Amino acid sequence: MADLDQATILQQIKIVLCQTSHPGNIGAAARAMKTMGLQQLVLVNPRDYPSYEATARSSGATDILEDAKVVSTLEEAIGDCRLVIGTSSRNRALPWPMVEPREIKSIVQNEPSALPVAIVFGRESTGLLNEELQLCHYHVNIPANPDYMSLNLAAAVQVICYECRLLALELKNSLESATEELSVDDSERKATVEQTEGLYQHFESVMIETGFFDPEEPKLLPARLHRLFAKSQLTEAEVNILRGFLASMGKHIKYHTGKKDSGES
Amino acid sequence: MADLDQATILQQIKIVLCQTSHPGNIGAAARAMKTMGLQQLVLVNPRDYPSYEATARSSGATDILEDAKVVSTLEEAIGDCRLVIGTSSRNRALPWPMVEPREIKSIVQNEPSALPVAIVFGRESTGLLNEELQLCHYHVNIPANPDYMSLNLAAAVQVICYECRLLALELKNSLESATEELSVDDSERKATVEQTEGLYQHFESVMIETGFFDPEEPKLLPARLHRLFAKSQLTEAEVNILRGFLASMGKHIKYHTGKKDSGES
Repeated sequence: MADLDQATILQQIKIVLCQTSHPGNIGAAARAMKTMGLQQLVLVNPRDYPSYEATARSSGATDILEDAKVVSTLEEAIGDCRLVIGTSSRNRALPWPMVEPREIKSIVQNEPSALPVAIVFGRESTGLLNEELQLCHYHVNIPANPDYMSLNLAAAVQVICYECRLLALELKNSLESATEELSVDDSERKATVEQTEGLYQHFESVMIETGFFDPEEPKLLPARLHRLFAKSQLTEAEVNILRGFLASMGKHIKYHTGKKDSGES
Repeated sequence: MADLDQATILQQIKIVLCQTSHPGNIGAAARAMKTMGLQQLVLVNPRDYPSYEATARSSGATDILEDAKVVSTLEEAIGDCRLVIGTSSRNRALPWPMVEPREIKSIVQNEPSALPVAIVFGRESTGLLNEELQLCHYHVNIPANPDYMSLNLAAAVQVICYECRLLALELKNSLESATEELSVDDSERKATVEQTEGLYQHFESVMIETGFFDPEEPKLLPARLHRLFAKSQLTEAEVNILRGFLASMGKHIKYHTGKKDSGES
């Protein structure tokens, strides 16, 4: 991490827009990103894209649009990220670690292996779905007028990218004076979303096999497990240990049920 | 000032847009203001207003547009303000006190008599004119990507209003614990722009009379005087003292030139 400079930090912050309805908002978001030095845009199932309107509203930030990735699931968009922050204005049934935009800095600062970071924005009308929010380590809320919360999507992207720029400017300064402290043992790096999701799937399949979890009636269990993983900020080493344990349990189950069910493996 | 709460602070922050070309930007700016709880919008010579496009882009913040004042000069817009901050991305020939958006908070906090505050935004293409910037106490610069500074007007308003909301949230907290300290003797209140401009005009007329200033060849003198006033953050009492002095000087000149020029008064 010794070569982290301001541009590198900003390059490793991904803006992810989920199911955007209006292509103009995608263009305006690209412009907002570029003014603040961010480059990576990922679009999850945009309704109308590519589009003339997106290009028009991007006002010269067409390079961001050209390089934007279009994917079909949020998991694909954030798979390689170690820190995922979802924008949310609502209090959910299952409370999640909430931060203000300004606090993103200290999260990244305290967690030098957090890059790449994804910041995820929801639909214009309904925001992020609960399943999407559960893939996030933190939820960020832009403080808004309680009587009028109608923050435009591109305006929200502008505020968050502005905070990211300040973050990168400040981090650059603190990193320059403390690069050694920040070097992190590989196994102590935070797990990527893909690794953590792999762990979750592994948990789920073993829990189904043991009869602990009924996928027909999931209740809050998946959400609670996701929140636990988000909160514990698992490292790669921890994911590996847990998966090793789950694998051993899986073998054990197969061995025993195999004995009963004529030994298929 | 004991009754300052968050809403009161935000009500006393005016957003002033100078000669906006695109009515859509006015609507989007109104929306940005309202999401952050600001209410006072002043339009200096907008090119096309009122306009259907402004209303459409305001997306429900039509009350802000309906209450917006339209005036023909910046002086009218900010006459009653005690602190004026102009947005500027450029380094000018005559350097001015520059702040970052985040620093607006400490200016207002350290200067409890600074309300009402105006924050002034320039044209989409060319920003604020030098004459307009000289009416400001501070210039604020939103840190942007040096390779792409094309911040949309409404996006800039969004970032500044976001900082104003954070300012009001934090000031409210600090004011609640220290309202006594903040009560200010009337004469120690910061002068309004109108009062300071009156002082400037008074200075200018006396300097012309004394032959010190040639309005046909102003050079940097008006700018330097404005900057001096901006920097010294004059109080009402100081403006009164200086004007008293200028008046006495004027009388003196009239008395003496009167003697030579047959005594007109």
